[in-house]
Amino acid sequence: MLIVMKPTASRSEVEAVAEKIRALGLTPHAIPGAQRVAIGITGNKGGLDAGPFEVLPGVGDVIRVSQPFKLVSREVKPEDTVIDVGGALLGGKAIAVMAGPCSVESREQILEAAHAVKKAGARFLRGGAFKPRTSPYEFQGLGEEGLKLLAEARAQTGLKVVTEIMDPDDLPMCLEYADVLQLGARNMQNYSLLKRLGTAGKPVLLKRGPAATIREWLMAAEYVLAHGNYQVALCERGIRTFETATRNTLDLNAVPVLKALTHLPVVVDPSHGIGIRAHVPAMARAGVAAGADAIIVEVHPCPEKALSDGQQSLTPAEFEELMSQVRVIAGAIGRGIA
Amino acid sequence: MLIVMKPTASRSEVEAVAEKIRALGLTPHAIPGAQRVAIGITGNKGGLDAGPFEVLPGVGDVIRVSQPFKLVSREVKPEDTVIDVGGALLGGKAIAVMAGPCSVESREQILEAAHAVKKAGARFLRGGAFKPRTSPYEFQGLGEEGLKLLAEARAQTGLKVVTEIMDPDDLPMCLEYADVLQLGARNMQNYSLLKRLGTAGKPVLLKRGPAATIREWLMAAEYVLAHGNYQVALCERGIRTFETATRNTLDLNAVPVLKALTHLPVVVDPSHGIGIRAHVPAMARAGVAAGADAIIVEVHPCPEKALSDGQQSLTPAEFEELMSQVRVIAGAIGRGIA
Amino acid sequence: MLIVMKPTASRSEVEAVAEKIRALGLTPHAIPGAQRVAIGITGNKGGLDAGPFEVLPGVGDVIRVSQPFKLVSREVKPEDTVIDVGGALLGGKAIAVMAGPCSVESREQILEAAHAVKKAGARFLRGGAFKPRTSPYEFQGLGEEGLKLLAEARAQTGLKVVTEIMDPDDLPMCLEYADVLQLGARNMQNYSLLKRLGTAGKPVLLKRGPAATIREWLMAAEYVLAHGNYQVALCERGIRTFETATRNTLDLNAVPVLKALTHLPVVVDPSHGIGIRAHVPAMARAGVAAGADAIIVEVHPCPEKALSDGQQSLTPAEFEELMSQVRVIAGAIGRGIA
Amino acid sequence: MLIVMKPTASRSEVEAVAEKIRALGLTPHAIPGAQRVAIGITGNKGGLDAGPFEVLPGVGDVIRVSQPFKLVSREVKPEDTVIDVGGALLGGKAIAVMAGPCSVESREQILEAAHAVKKAGARFLRGGAFKPRTSPYEFQGLGEEGLKLLAEARAQTGLKVVTEIMDPDDLPMCLEYADVLQLGARNMQNYSLLKRLGTAGKPVLLKRGPAATIREWLMAAEYVLAHGNYQVALCERGIRTFETATRNTLDLNAVPVLKALTHLPVVVDPSHGIGIRAHVPAMARAGVAAGADAIIVEVHPCPEKALSDGQQSLTPAEFEELMSQVRVIAGAIGRGIA
Repeated sequence: MLIVMKPTASRSEVEAVAEKIRALGLTPHAIPGAQRVAIGITGNKGGLDAGPFEVLPGVGDVIRVSQPFKLVSREVKPEDTVIDVGGALLGGKAIAVMAGPCSVESREQILEAAHAVKKAGARFLRGGAFKPRTSPYEFQGLGEEGLKLLAEARAQTGLKVVTEIMDPDDLPMCLEYADVLQLGARNMQNYSLLKRLGTAGKPVLLKRGPAATIREWLMAAEYVLAHGNYQVALCERGIRTFETATRNTLDLNAVPVLKALTHLPVVVDPSHGIGIRAHVPAMARAGVAAGADAIIVEVHPCPEKALSDGQQSLTPAEFEELMSQVRVIAGAIGRGIA
Repeated sequence: MLIVMKPTASRSEVEAVAEKIRALGLTPHAIPGAQRVAIGITGNKGGLDAGPFEVLPGVGDVIRVSQPFKLVSREVKPEDTVIDVGGALLGGKAIAVMAGPCSVESREQILEAAHAVKKAGARFLRGGAFKPRTSPYEFQGLGEEGLKLLAEARAQTGLKVVTEIMDPDDLPMCLEYADVLQLGARNMQNYSLLKRLGTAGKPVLLKRGPAATIREWLMAAEYVLAHGNYQVALCERGIRTFETATRNTLDLNAVPVLKALTHLPVVVDPSHGIGIRAHVPAMARAGVAAGADAIIVEVHPCPEKALSDGQQSLTPAEFEELMSQVRVIAGAIGRGIA
Repeated sequence: MLIVMKPTASRSEVEAVAEKIRALGLTPHAIPGAQRVAIGITGNKGGLDAGPFEVLPGVGDVIRVSQPFKLVSREVKPEDTVIDVGGALLGGKAIAVMAGPCSVESREQILEAAHAVKKAGARFLRGGAFKPRTSPYEFQGLGEEGLKLLAEARAQTGLKVVTEIMDPDDLPMCLEYADVLQLGARNMQNYSLLKRLGTAGKPVLLKRGPAATIREWLMAAEYVLAHGNYQVALCERGIRTFETATRNTLDLNAVPVLKALTHLPVVVDPSHGIGIRAHVPAMARAGVAAGADAIIVEVHPCPEKALSDGQQSLTPAEFEELMSQVRVIAGAIGRGIA
Repeated sequence: MLIVMKPTASRSEVEAVAEKIRALGLTPHAIPGAQRVAIGITGNKGGLDAGPFEVLPGVGDVIRVSQPFKLVSREVKPEDTVIDVGGALLGGKAIAVMAGPCSVESREQILEAAHAVKKAGARFLRGGAFKPRTSPYEFQGLGEEGLKLLAEARAQTGLKVVTEIMDPDDLPMCLEYADVLQLGARNMQNYSLLKRLGTAGKPVLLKRGPAATIREWLMAAEYVLAHGNYQVALCERGIRTFETATRNTLDLNAVPVLKALTHLPVVVDPSHGIGIRAHVPAMARAGVAAGADAIIVEVHPCPEKALSDGQQSLTPAEFEELMSQVRVIAGAIGRGIA
């Protein structure tokens, strides 16, 4: 159940509603909106009676939520969430572009990549300092050194830094350097990490697990919101199917389905999604045409020499060409590039 | 192996090459091109020696084909196949639009649908007279009566008729009424039907099986070409995955992968692909943005009353709206609607 | 709905019930049982009123069927179906064993295989005369010559012949030579073939499609029963999943699920299921332990020289060893080998 | 590459080999065996030259390892790993049985469950104190209180405690109470947790991720071994497929495939695997018949009242019946119950 306060509701009226909820043994979740506050209720088994809430001062509306996910649901918050990352917006009408190498490999590499993607129009720089690798014997990332290089790239370009966190113990360090914390596909249901991101106070980019249903993915996001962090974007990066011609099966069907179910921004990762460099632009275009709010693209100054994911990374020149294509598609559907 | 003749090669030079191939116990497949003829060779185990062919008069080039599929391969025929269906083109720069109801249900229904999709810009009318249904107790289609109604709709509108064939015994009847013969997803590997379509002399729309890899799909098309029919289009209509939020998982990754591997036109079916009416337009847009040569969309005058697939059929008004969106996307990538 | 007649019901009482059903515009399906006849009703939308039937003479019980499949359902026929193939039983307490090569390749090969599997304890000989092959350029089977060789093997050994039918036009020929008609995985939803097998009057071995759910599979079997043929066995042969370490994923979960839902015999094909010769015995043992009524195993006198499926075929010696293992497992669960 | 020392090799000879490896910039992994020590080498790109090692004193054999996983590979260690958990063996000829409730819910519940499964013949008690739940609003486990109750159950019954760890911060606490640390399916590729388990000094039960290939799963185990812990068992618990009739698709094909590839013990979890109480015994039997070294079964004193997984938990009486079935199957293949 969701209790929507009137735009004129006072802070104490909001608190009185929360108190009433607690008195019933349930948990209130205040969800701040542009014009008015809503209060989600969790912890109940079965339906609640709306009556006791409707009569409280300041209450505008009481809405039943039919989905197992609540705080991420569009029933609860009909308007799109727009995440303001230090002035760069993620969500809303303009399409955000995130780009950069799979891994931070060296100062030269990350700075070259950052300047290139900035020039082509990206507002966010992606790059991994901690890399989840299938084999323990592969390159595992530069760690804090990588984070420092990302911060240096930000200082030079103004790009916002998106980077993956794998270990809860790295959270303080990541918070120091990153603007957006990425939770990778293999950790989508790492609940202890999800809970900590719920109190981290920074935007989260939650990648879909390769075998996660859309509902499980929304429930994972719900963990972050339920622990207090409403700044979550959902990133489709391909699911695992029987098809072996592509690295993963980028599931663009998830884009319109998510846009109907949730208010959170939806990001598409064509690079991991299809995993074949020549086909990344087609999937980026398709993602935007399907309604994505952002794309995240792997770009490397020299893909042949990349320590990871070279086969799916674009060169700066290819990325510039992709940007011009995406810009046209965005324009065609009444949107633009942020 | 593929032997590409010089543009100036005479008919007897082509025949001499074919004779040479037969003399080796192999099978020649002449593939007519706009400017010159190519001859595919099948039946060999392992590589062939190019030497004996290179010296024959009229031979321009000898190309090794590295894929198990040969005649459908872009290695063998680099330029796109454009199928001319009585003046309506399938393949090539302009995007073809096929639309209509899942099943032909009545004269009134199919005529109303045909006029509506014609008005909105479609050039092909889809509609099933023979319906593969999961249950033997469900509506199985009107049979020949349905085919006659489709022919009447063509007479009134000029739309070309696309309809499914399920039983080899129905082939003469289907050939009488249809312009394009559709082979449904469940019959993609029905090799006896594929072979007959290879000699049917009419264009074939080959839907992807729900668990078929792209390579298996191309091999199924290869059956039709190997038996003599080069007019085949491939229709992506969603694969089966673990996801249950959508009816199928429309695999748009297949579009750029196919465009690189084959010269055959690629069609996208967003209706079966996602299976949710509200989301069909997003997937149609994405399909075109990904590079599809055509889309096929379910449209019913009154989806709520449809005997099959009502939940994924658009109303004529929704289809008109979709056409305007698709037109914009097509324009944005330098294509148009046929 | 299912109408169960009393054991004492007369033939005319059964006919009167059927007449009543037809009068309602529905279709009766008489299902003969060991002690009494049941009559399934199909064609109704929504529930039927039991009243009009309960009062008819000879009616013992009226049962509502909650599944979309009816005639195959255990609700409709609680006791196991046992198919008597000229004295060799398929279904029931004893476990039937089918074995032989993937394809009939030569007189010598099939006779050697037949004698070997007979000696090891099989009662059914499998062997393909018509082979569904992914590529049109691969060996397609010996056709009628292959059927004749199978019949010769039967004459020499007494083994019952199980062979695949792919084309409806081959039905008369197959009926002449085969004891059990196999419908292959790729044709599981070839409804025109299913319907013909419904009137073929011979037992059918219906393989599961690689992407078919258990319910779709039961609905495919329902097609055969609804057209009059109650002698159907269901063969699990592996589904398509993301796993590439095995050819398919033999889904033994289907065995207990099917045994609960249907009265039809359940067969397990470990050869196609796992597709790796060394692991076929383990999966055969597991299939029997899971409750299968039969196994079907590929055996070739010389697997290295097989024209198809050599990598998953056992030698006669390996098959004999497998039989001794299966015999022990069957004994352990109170069953034996037929 | 693997260097197998002679049975008579001295400790300093082993160390000399390790030193030689380090001198090449690579990492040695000493793998103690029953009769002789082997030394795995990781960190090399491409093949190594065997020559420099073969001539060192004490070296018996130098083996090339063809798989990306090394330490878990049967190439490296041909004989089965047997994990001795305080006297209860996991791996080897006798089949180990683990049983207990999904979650520890109360003192009464866990003690009743423990005594029941002990009586029926289990040697290990399973029970979750930290529960990964899809929804943040569901029961998350009793935490340390749950661990204490498990320890109490061990004290009363002598059963070894198997329990899941989710958060690295809980490791010291889990080490205090648990005998075997379970890493759940959703955390199979949680590399930071895998690395810590590599230095934890306690046996690890590594569940297969629902979309993990067998190779990825072995690579996850390789993380634990590469960080020093060789006591790892692999637990198949069902993969995610398109089938919805069962909770997961228990992939018994993995059992023989794993037994060929790795020396680690293989455990089968029929409860999560099929997820339907009535069918758990069939899958347990099949798992043993396929060659599993252990089974892990959910048992609850009162499944209808379970806070999690009640639909797949057996009653104590059903578990006793399952044990008698499993015992017979184990005997039939020359094994017994530990």
